Amino acid sequence: MKKIILKSILLLFLFANTVLADPLSSWNDTAPKKAIIAFVEKVTKPGSKDFVPIEERIATFDNDGTLWSERPLPFQCAFIFERIKALSSQNPQWKNTEPFASVIKGDINSAPVNINDANKDLLAMVLATQSGITTDEYEKAVTDWIAVAKHSKTNRLYTDMTLQPMLELLAYLRANDFKIFIVSGGSSDFMRPWAEKVYGIPPEQVIGSSIKTKFEFQNGKPVIVGIPELNSMTAGKGKPLAIQSHIGRRPIASFGNSDNDLPMMQWTSAGSGVSFCLYVHHDDDKREWAYDRKFIDPFDKGLDEALSKGWTVVSMKNDWKIIYPFEKK
Amino acid sequence: MKKIILKSILLLFLFANTVLADPLSSWNDTAPKKAIIAFVEKVTKPGSKDFVPIEERIATFDNDGTLWSERPLPFQCAFIFERIKALSSQNPQWKNTEPFASVIKGDINSAPVNINDANKDLLAMVLATQSGITTDEYEKAVTDWIAVAKHSKTNRLYTDMTLQPMLELLAYLRANDFKIFIVSGGSSDFMRPWAEKVYGIPPEQVIGSSIKTKFEFQNGKPVIVGIPELNSMTAGKGKPLAIQSHIGRRPIASFGNSDNDLPMMQWTSAGSGVSFCLYVHHDDDKREWAYDRKFIDPFDKGLDEALSKGWTVVSMKNDWKIIYPFEKK
Repeated sequence: MKKIILKSILLLFLFANTVLADPLSSWNDTAPKKAIIAFVEKVTKPGSKDFVPIEERIATFDNDGTLWSERPLPFQCAFIFERIKALSSQNPQWKNTEPFASVIKGDINSAPVNINDANKDLLAMVLATQSGITTDEYEKAVTDWIAVAKHSKTNRLYTDMTLQPMLELLAYLRANDFKIFIVSGGSSDFMRPWAEKVYGIPPEQVIGSSIKTKFEFQNGKPVIVGIPELNSMTAGKGKPLAIQSHIGRRPIASFGNSDNDLPMMQWTSAGSGVSFCLYVHHDDDKREWAYDRKFIDPFDKGLDEALSKGWTVVSMKNDWKIIYPFEKK
Repeated sequence: MKKIILKSILLLFLFANTVLADPLSSWNDTAPKKAIIAFVEKVTKPGSKDFVPIEERIATFDNDGTLWSERPLPFQCAFIFERIKALSSQNPQWKNTEPFASVIKGDINSAPVNINDANKDLLAMVLATQSGITTDEYEKAVTDWIAVAKHSKTNRLYTDMTLQPMLELLAYLRANDFKIFIVSGGSSDFMRPWAEKVYGIPPEQVIGSSIKTKFEFQNGKPVIVGIPELNSMTAGKGKPLAIQSHIGRRPIASFGNSDNDLPMMQWTSAGSGVSFCLYVHHDDDKREWAYDRKFIDPFDKGLDEALSKGWTVVSMKNDWKIIYPFEKK
């Protein structure tokens, strides 16, 4: 009985808190915030013609550029470059092979990294650094790196460069019983070690690109070891395919920032009921970065389609009070 | 405030119900039931040295032979055979090609279906019947079939041939905040349309074998279409690989009935904390079927390893009061 009373008090507290506090306090009271709230109220209100049962409240989020920054290059690249340097003594042939040679020289800007063109160079580096070791070893390497590595421009931890208004959006959706998935072109094995702590999204709700693996015994212990072969690339058209394969039902809300997210939004908005698509537009070169149609992962066709279809486009400059959590007063 | 009071009453009711009713009432009070309860109490008791936080309470279940029966052949085969017959007029070449020819003739027992040897024949039939149509169309075909198709021996709906003690086990684990996944060699697209209703397991927690897919537009509408190429086979060693790829954390409990589940159990039991592995042994030829070492999906190495490692082996004959839900009084 004591437990029940305690639970009731907790519920009352949560209830009061929800009513009193603004769940999207870092958002200006402009159109995007209003559109988000209108959508959530519509699908959660019992009896509403647009009501969506809890189990169907699936929301999918891109990661790079949507939940955290992605300049000058998606942050996983910094991890990969450091791994290549660390592994270079065991791989002397890399000194004469691009893209490894430029990365080892520290000349990252001249490295022929072209993640737009079939991700060829980046894929070669992912395969080289993620294969041949166990999933446990790779997880430890990511965990150790993310705890201390700092961004070259802000000198902040990468996990400090999450987008505060988007963290509030995650919490707001979660409070309204949405189940949130990350669907990112980045590696699932790179995101999972920290996504639960940073975003509150558990590993099983993090969908990313992956390499093939094998199951074997090492010293009598079963391990899973990476094979240098692509398993799936969850970018562009790969996003709806990954959603279907992993989640098995269509999201009712999707969030992204580039053309790589467009098929996910097309899939989301073609569902039979109400849906919501939101694009984050990086247009704030003072507080973050301003870029769209010309980045290696451009926001071009997606921007046109969002404008023509009336999807929500967030101007980071005009719609957000702050960008990063460390700006909070 | 009214909501809070209602919630408290509901909690009180659930609490009383949990304490009073036996959650595993179809299980005899033999060793397996005791082992299940001891494990669950150990990992859920705060302060226990074996306590496992809720988010890490991952349990993985095989489907065929573990959650429902699988004789004379896994039930998905019956669906596939019917699809082949239905599609045979559009595929006249099948009349002269095995395994299609025997299936069309209705001579299923003589069809060279060998799902043990790399699943070659079955795979050919899966690829032929699941590709070239959209995921929505395939889902409709499964839903329509499972609603009416009956088992040749029992004349019951296949969904009536779930194993009642295992349904109780699912509910018991769920009540103790376990997150339950199916990890089956069957197709995820075959299981997902009915698994939520029948087992309470949502599509995103159903992991199965899959074929490749493509994203395209048909009449201006985005669709996902099956391609006749295997994507992943989640049997045997494929089970821990699928667990790692889909869930991204190691289960603490696994449940199966054949050698195809052994790598999943090895992976589960090699975790750093406490774990639980349970095999269902089909030894009841009166109420169900008796088979193990000689079936197309044998329980042979798994049986030996379970016995040598002290995993829980359920005798359906001795440990279960009833087999199917329709036997309930």
